[in-house]
Amino acid sequence: MNDSSTPSLYLALIHHPVLNKHLETIASAVTNLDLHDISRAARTFGAQALYIVTPLQDQQDLCRRIVDHWTNGWGATFNSDRKDALGLIRIQASLKAVKKEIEGREGTTPKTVATGARIDAAVKTKRLCFPDLRRHLRDRDSGPWLLLFGTAWGLSPPVMAAADHLLEPIAGNGNYNHLSVRSAAAIILDRLLGRDDK
Amino acid sequence: MNDSSTPSLYLALIHHPVLNKHLETIASAVTNLDLHDISRAARTFGAQALYIVTPLQDQQDLCRRIVDHWTNGWGATFNSDRKDALGLIRIQASLKAVKKEIEGREGTTPKTVATGARIDAAVKTKRLCFPDLRRHLRDRDSGPWLLLFGTAWGLSPPVMAAADHLLEPIAGNGNYNHLSVRSAAAIILDRLLGRDDK
Repeated sequence: MNDSSTPSLYLALIHHPVLNKHLETIASAVTNLDLHDISRAARTFGAQALYIVTPLQDQQDLCRRIVDHWTNGWGATFNSDRKDALGLIRIQASLKAVKKEIEGREGTTPKTVATGARIDAAVKTKRLCFPDLRRHLRDRDSGPWLLLFGTAWGLSPPVMAAADHLLEPIAGNGNYNHLSVRSAAAIILDRLLGRDDK
Repeated sequence: MNDSSTPSLYLALIHHPVLNKHLETIASAVTNLDLHDISRAARTFGAQALYIVTPLQDQQDLCRRIVDHWTNGWGATFNSDRKDALGLIRIQASLKAVKKEIEGREGTTPKTVATGARIDAAVKTKRLCFPDLRRHLRDRDSGPWLLLFGTAWGLSPPVMAAADHLLEPIAGNGNYNHLSVRSAAAIILDRLLGRDDK
């Protein structure tokens, strides 16, 4: 499925299990602009697919309506650029189902890399810095890779614990690091897949 | 107003004059998530302020209600991180008024840098690449700087023509470069103000 000129990087936007403000495990609602912004960034930088992960049937249906509008409906005629981007979206009920689908496409289970602003700098096990993951993505024999993004207050601890790797958080200037998942995904894709001459 | 440890970079999100899909000049509507995402990225990377520029009174009122909710209202108590970010937002009717306000704060008119995906690679005059602007921002004697972001289909040609500089577009892998303004602003701030060791 994947030609040899593009890195074998997949994205998953997780809506369950994620944390709420009180660090309780919840299923979050799908945000329309997440689908647009992250699929446009995925298309710009050459990710293979964007999985929207939610076990809730009504949220899956909402996603399908949005994607269908822009890939087959009126939106596809109005703005074909959105068709190109939202065409990368796949909907799955669980991370397990995502991994199985990628394995079916690629022949190998993807290595998972969890992202999050609260990933502790002190945790050295499983930690990947941006240059290391960028290097792995250029090695055709190392993939496929699957980046996990959390909605709401971030990925739940069991997802973090089960991930093969944890990506170092995006550090700004100072202690404030409350980027939206849309902004974080854009920066991460630029750092991992952006051109060398930027 | 500006201490010496942070770069003197201001952002302006322009809602008029911008282009629509047919490249006609319009005033666009304010998008709630633009205010959140771009102010959070501005706060993360240390920009001085985010100006929302619209001549439409009802759109200015809408902005004020959103900002007030998160900086003084219920939202400020619910999530103080948003207060820190949305507190960077200023509302102005025109780019001219923005420049005047910055001049009042800094004592010097800001140098304007227009951004946009369609900035022609062939145009060498006024063009700035990311490393050059990053260097300028570290030179305390060169500022203040004002980055201009367009909503809808981008900044109108007169705004581009009047800008002191044009920032090179964000290039991805391939010809697709249709990032949202939220994603583009995040990547641009990371490239200009992000830490050296990223």
